[in-house]
Amino acid sequence: MKPLPISRYPVPRLESLPEDIRARIEQVQEKAGFVPNVFLTLAHRPDEFRAFFAYHDALMEKQGGLSKAEREMIVVATSGANDCLYCVIAHGAILRIYAKNPLIADQVATNHRKADITPRQRAMLDFALQVALDSASIGDEDFERLRAHGFDAEDIWDIGAIAAFFALSNRMANMIGMRPNDEFYLLGRLPKPAAANR
Amino acid sequence: MKPLPISRYPVPRLESLPEDIRARIEQVQEKAGFVPNVFLTLAHRPDEFRAFFAYHDALMEKQGGLSKAEREMIVVATSGANDCLYCVIAHGAILRIYAKNPLIADQVATNHRKADITPRQRAMLDFALQVALDSASIGDEDFERLRAHGFDAEDIWDIGAIAAFFALSNRMANMIGMRPNDEFYLLGRLPKPAAANR
Amino acid sequence: MKPLPISRYPVPRLESLPEDIRARIEQVQEKAGFVPNVFLTLAHRPDEFRAFFAYHDALMEKQGGLSKAEREMIVVATSGANDCLYCVIAHGAILRIYAKNPLIADQVATNHRKADITPRQRAMLDFALQVALDSASIGDEDFERLRAHGFDAEDIWDIGAIAAFFALSNRMANMIGMRPNDEFYLLGRLPKPAAANR
Amino acid sequence: MKPLPISRYPVPRLESLPEDIRARIEQVQEKAGFVPNVFLTLAHRPDEFRAFFAYHDALMEKQGGLSKAEREMIVVATSGANDCLYCVIAHGAILRIYAKNPLIADQVATNHRKADITPRQRAMLDFALQVALDSASIGDEDFERLRAHGFDAEDIWDIGAIAAFFALSNRMANMIGMRPNDEFYLLGRLPKPAAANR
Amino acid sequence: MKPLPISRYPVPRLESLPEDIRARIEQVQEKAGFVPNVFLTLAHRPDEFRAFFAYHDALMEKQGGLSKAEREMIVVATSGANDCLYCVIAHGAILRIYAKNPLIADQVATNHRKADITPRQRAMLDFALQVALDSASIGDEDFERLRAHGFDAEDIWDIGAIAAFFALSNRMANMIGMRPNDEFYLLGRLPKPAAANR
Amino acid sequence: MKPLPISRYPVPRLESLPEDIRARIEQVQEKAGFVPNVFLTLAHRPDEFRAFFAYHDALMEKQGGLSKAEREMIVVATSGANDCLYCVIAHGAILRIYAKNPLIADQVATNHRKADITPRQRAMLDFALQVALDSASIGDEDFERLRAHGFDAEDIWDIGAIAAFFALSNRMANMIGMRPNDEFYLLGRLPKPAAANR
Repeated sequence: MKPLPISRYPVPRLESLPEDIRARIEQVQEKAGFVPNVFLTLAHRPDEFRAFFAYHDALMEKQGGLSKAEREMIVVATSGANDCLYCVIAHGAILRIYAKNPLIADQVATNHRKADITPRQRAMLDFALQVALDSASIGDEDFERLRAHGFDAEDIWDIGAIAAFFALSNRMANMIGMRPNDEFYLLGRLPKPAAANR
Repeated sequence: MKPLPISRYPVPRLESLPEDIRARIEQVQEKAGFVPNVFLTLAHRPDEFRAFFAYHDALMEKQGGLSKAEREMIVVATSGANDCLYCVIAHGAILRIYAKNPLIADQVATNHRKADITPRQRAMLDFALQVALDSASIGDEDFERLRAHGFDAEDIWDIGAIAAFFALSNRMANMIGMRPNDEFYLLGRLPKPAAANR
Repeated sequence: MKPLPISRYPVPRLESLPEDIRARIEQVQEKAGFVPNVFLTLAHRPDEFRAFFAYHDALMEKQGGLSKAEREMIVVATSGANDCLYCVIAHGAILRIYAKNPLIADQVATNHRKADITPRQRAMLDFALQVALDSASIGDEDFERLRAHGFDAEDIWDIGAIAAFFALSNRMANMIGMRPNDEFYLLGRLPKPAAANR
Repeated sequence: MKPLPISRYPVPRLESLPEDIRARIEQVQEKAGFVPNVFLTLAHRPDEFRAFFAYHDALMEKQGGLSKAEREMIVVATSGANDCLYCVIAHGAILRIYAKNPLIADQVATNHRKADITPRQRAMLDFALQVALDSASIGDEDFERLRAHGFDAEDIWDIGAIAAFFALSNRMANMIGMRPNDEFYLLGRLPKPAAANR
Repeated sequence: MKPLPISRYPVPRLESLPEDIRARIEQVQEKAGFVPNVFLTLAHRPDEFRAFFAYHDALMEKQGGLSKAEREMIVVATSGANDCLYCVIAHGAILRIYAKNPLIADQVATNHRKADITPRQRAMLDFALQVALDSASIGDEDFERLRAHGFDAEDIWDIGAIAAFFALSNRMANMIGMRPNDEFYLLGRLPKPAAANR
Repeated sequence: MKPLPISRYPVPRLESLPEDIRARIEQVQEKAGFVPNVFLTLAHRPDEFRAFFAYHDALMEKQGGLSKAEREMIVVATSGANDCLYCVIAHGAILRIYAKNPLIADQVATNHRKADITPRQRAMLDFALQVALDSASIGDEDFERLRAHGFDAEDIWDIGAIAAFFALSNRMANMIGMRPNDEFYLLGRLPKPAAANR
């Protein structure tokens, strides 16, 4: 069985890309050791690429009440609910690394109610899944429930906005048939020698 | 009954906003005669605001196989499916204006199968709704069906990407309780004197 | 694009109709200034026509704890949930007129949780939507919830019966492809000179 | 365990009812040997009672391309899909009697795909269930499918209108908690002596 | 209309079956007066037959906090939710016999909220249906709700395990098209002379 | 965050178990190097344990048209659809080992349409998911579709029966909160030295 291609659309060669996009790709390659396919496949549309990663960075690299691992939990839980292979696999790897926990990503992707997370994180993911699956039903009582777990209004925006952004991302990946790099599947599953921590 | 507020979050005063965001808002106000609430409410987060509108413009102001009215049809149909009041009302107004058709927006928002559209537009909206509601099921056969109506691969990306972007937009609007400006409800419903066409 | 026909079935000429049905149609024409298509399309079956409008009038022109505008809210909310173009457009117009509110119909049709309504009206529409979408789940606790908002047993029957009647009406309209008259789309959206109130 | 009451609402005494309603009830009692609870419970609202049974009779006692047993099949299949105990039990009894088949009602109520019916009846019930559960999706292709089984346009109206009427009826029964008479459960299940046929 | 066959698969002749399976079948035939089709159709696979009935007996013939009638209620309610004709009809008959109640099976199969059962039995069936339809959502709070009705942990296992076992059974019956024996439809519906009680 | 327990129920000590169950557990421990929690948690009910594993072995260790890897694909795909953490993780590991493919389990669990499988395997999983999620809709046309891919009637029984058995298994695991052993998460993800193949 030949593996599926990484996109239903043509994947641009690096040297054909605008300078800023090529720079971003080279930077991630240096950091990760490989180029995640989301960079190559979305580069088919440079303007959308720029907006996509600007949005991504604004939400995922922001300081605030949510840790980086918690932000990735939101991505993995909602991507699991949307059956998005790329995001479950790629962000599952990132979640394992940030949380330094080799089990958490598969747990959150499959059924967050069975994951080794705190009640506060459970409430966070309940809300994220409501945004992902039934945002029309959100009411003030949902905000109250999160506040009872110590989230402030800006944290709630973060949770909802990450779930909303990956509603977009999951649909793009599903539409173009974005294939996760083979490297992601194993990342963060093995105990690391101390020096290898990022 | 007091009207609901325009957002669950604080709405920044114009003079407190970064220069580029203020400029964008003043520009839209000049064109439309009022400031659509999406600009005011999302300005609560300047970085996300910039990415949001960069993405929006890349998809909605692009040249290509889809007319501007068709792009708005996709927005209205998927926003209707997501029960997003802001996007149905605001983009319904824009659709009426672009299509020069006072009926089309309510038709597409309620049930696109009953709208006065072409079979090609019907196929376009069927795919957009699949992206919105069940993107995991998209397969090559769905691409074939669109190609049979004369859409090329780039058109299909446009359809899917607009549906995906408004999956984000609808969830943000539902989460923060974004209220459509009263002005939108009537826009494009009245026959215009010839000189008033945009 | 040629507009869709007003029905999948033949539409009888006025002069071919039984006297009582013709009288009813002439009466509504005089009052509204045009003949809503529901009268013309359902007249294809005179006996069903008579029962339909007898039922309609028994529910919608009844005195009781619900105002006329509230009865129309129930119609518009449940017809929106059933994606029924005719009823959303035609009863949306009637709701705007009765409520003297140009925004309320689009709000209720799209997402009643975002509408400018009272908590009592919100509870009324929650129950109406339960009758429309999941009547098998109705229990005594749902009656209690309405009673807590001041509805008595007869009011609750009214809410449920209107939702049930439009479950029928929406399905007939969807089945025969009933097209709303163009006139409805604009009705009640413009401020009226005082003398024009009905 | 005390049996549930026959309605959440007061059930009028026969002698307190308007003459025409009492006459109708006495007539059905004479024919059936008992008064089906739908007559007693809906008599709480005389005007709605009259419209309900006028509509019922217009659809169920009409001549046409559908046999009486087929009309009842539509009722039983859609009432099963709506989890309506009254209509499944009461119309199940009527279906057994009309079809002279003691098995058919339970088959159609539980899963019409497993019932001993003709392919034409299978197509009829498929359409009735679409009207009951997803009327917004009905298109010309559904009419074509029925025509291929020999149904004409008037037959299709009958199928759809019966499904639509029982969408109303099921919701009323579920809302008021209408209890089927104990007599219905056994009716039509036993072989009848020749002289007892109706 | 010729009745549907009892299985999509070949039904083994009794004399071709392994001794233990034949003995089990002869035993049930002696007790019931006929061979329920589940024995004949599943005998197509002797090893699976043995495991199936061992599992069935471990759950259904066990002593404990649930009566035999209550165990059958769980079967009938969940089989109704799964639209499984064989199990609704066959276990409906057994439920009527165990409960000595000719109405209970049709009530529980159609809508357990309208059945003449105790609040404790209602809670039992609510949980069984959650196991049948949405087991991923089960949480500690669901166990608490059952404990409040007097169920201990072993009772809850029984409820869940019976619902889980018939999730298997319903799917097998639906897949092979297992037809209920005609005899089941009438069993337990008639008052029995005292001596005929089992 | 303390890990969740391996079951909501008491886990029997090995030495307290009946001889045959202890032997089975010791055998699997020897083979796998650890005791999968499904053996320990289900041993709480010895009779059900015996039937469960007899059924499991009859389906999963059978010879026939499906390879062992294909049988596990069915388990993983349907367990993913049922959000069953134990089965996704444990059988995902077994699938990786049988298929000698470190990627296949995550692909099949998340979205089998995006997995590196053959069209024949895709059809197999489509049917398995229909059995898992909507078995009432299965018709002869579904059998035809599988036959067109070369499956015979016995293969189809295998596919359906495995999906049906794990409908039971997933519900039991979700109900008792069965926790997958940490060891499973990494199994089959690393290239093995030739001698280590099982």
